[in-house]
Amino acid sequence: MDDRGLAYGDGLFETILVRDGVPLLWEAHMARLERGCRVLGMPLPDSRALACLPAEAGPGLCVLKLMLTRGSGGRGYLPPDAPTPRLRWQTAAFTPRPEHWRDGVRVRHCRLRLAIQPLLAGLKHLNRLENVLARSEWSDPDLAEGLLCDSEGRLVEATCMNLIWQRNGRLETPCLDGCGVAGTLRAVLLDRLPIVEVKAGPEIAADAEAIWLVNSVQGVWPVARLDDAKGVPLANWKIGTGHRRLQAEAHALLGYPVAFAR
Amino acid sequence: MDDRGLAYGDGLFETILVRDGVPLLWEAHMARLERGCRVLGMPLPDSRALACLPAEAGPGLCVLKLMLTRGSGGRGYLPPDAPTPRLRWQTAAFTPRPEHWRDGVRVRHCRLRLAIQPLLAGLKHLNRLENVLARSEWSDPDLAEGLLCDSEGRLVEATCMNLIWQRNGRLETPCLDGCGVAGTLRAVLLDRLPIVEVKAGPEIAADAEAIWLVNSVQGVWPVARLDDAKGVPLANWKIGTGHRRLQAEAHALLGYPVAFAR
Repeated sequence: MDDRGLAYGDGLFETILVRDGVPLLWEAHMARLERGCRVLGMPLPDSRALACLPAEAGPGLCVLKLMLTRGSGGRGYLPPDAPTPRLRWQTAAFTPRPEHWRDGVRVRHCRLRLAIQPLLAGLKHLNRLENVLARSEWSDPDLAEGLLCDSEGRLVEATCMNLIWQRNGRLETPCLDGCGVAGTLRAVLLDRLPIVEVKAGPEIAADAEAIWLVNSVQGVWPVARLDDAKGVPLANWKIGTGHRRLQAEAHALLGYPVAFAR
Repeated sequence: MDDRGLAYGDGLFETILVRDGVPLLWEAHMARLERGCRVLGMPLPDSRALACLPAEAGPGLCVLKLMLTRGSGGRGYLPPDAPTPRLRWQTAAFTPRPEHWRDGVRVRHCRLRLAIQPLLAGLKHLNRLENVLARSEWSDPDLAEGLLCDSEGRLVEATCMNLIWQRNGRLETPCLDGCGVAGTLRAVLLDRLPIVEVKAGPEIAADAEAIWLVNSVQGVWPVARLDDAKGVPLANWKIGTGHRRLQAEAHALLGYPVAFAR
């Protein structure tokens, strides 16, 4: 009960795809964890100890969840001068959703607006009540994700995936300097492809030639249908070759299929 | 590690002053916990079981900390349909600060701006990284608290206390509909005194005839000196009879001293 992770959400986490004991996008996960530690003022755990963890996952596809809290101590909100962070981890078998890769997904806009806090933007920290409340907005299993705008009305992300879209032939993704989680697959794709970080309202989604939801565990889900927060359809996309190039680029990094039967 | 309180800060807490096993402002604490449960969509624990906890504290002054998380389960951010909340509690001996009651305190403005999230405003939930970062802005033990504005520049609260001030003879406190924790002592004082909830910028603090920091554990600290975020003095107040009336009203509710030697 005295762990500051539990008391205040004073910590960070990473969820890492592991195939036969080998982690995917490891450097990107470690870079984000390190950035988080710097912002929160916590020492990073020993990198060699961290690097041993993926091998503990069993054969096949697993997700390794790392959680790093500031540990115990301090006086109320004041952190201890020399915190002893606590590292927890668990692995679980993982089954991806090939039908989402192939056919695309249906998503909706969420009603919840993300609060703007530049100090914490991009980090995968443990203060995730907004994500919990947003994800509670729907229970229909046919809805794969919900899109989130910030309190100024800009499109930011989905509840647990990042957004990329193509508009006028150009790849774009929301700028995450005010809120949202800067996903590791998004980061790696930003390095490899001419994707531009933009500020745009939710109307952009319906104007896009293609939209994808991406994260380092699920891979790339093309968006086939977008509804408003009440479930009224706003736009449809036919999933075709226009969607496959970005997907193939990302899936090659994750060891996921890069081609799909028409 | 699978407790949603740890994973996402998906829960609530209360810190309750207990004297010889008898809790102070119990109804206000339970009302806030109940409001939090309603917003988060969690069942409230059995009220009789909760009511037995203060008696577990030892003799003298203690603080009882209650923590209620949504428990385990769900799929990622999606909460389980029928969550089984987990209640944790601990008690600790507590020593108040009579010198702060008597002489007042020195406070400063924090640099951090609170993000605006009306859905969570007022709740004492477990997503408290902003408070941790704000409290990390100073280590000088002579600084008792830090004042926080929201991202629109309105004064909201201190890192773990609420603010009340007197201006033109009128008692005012920041409106907490966008962020901040609605303290139980503040709530009870709002019920008993003609205190008006207002939206005001930080300049109000230097204009006030008196300012107090209040919470249900520490009682009422008059503010004697206010500095800016760099430590430059902005205003001073001589602690006198003008400060004592509100303090006496609050302290009577907490069993704290209501009169101080000049």
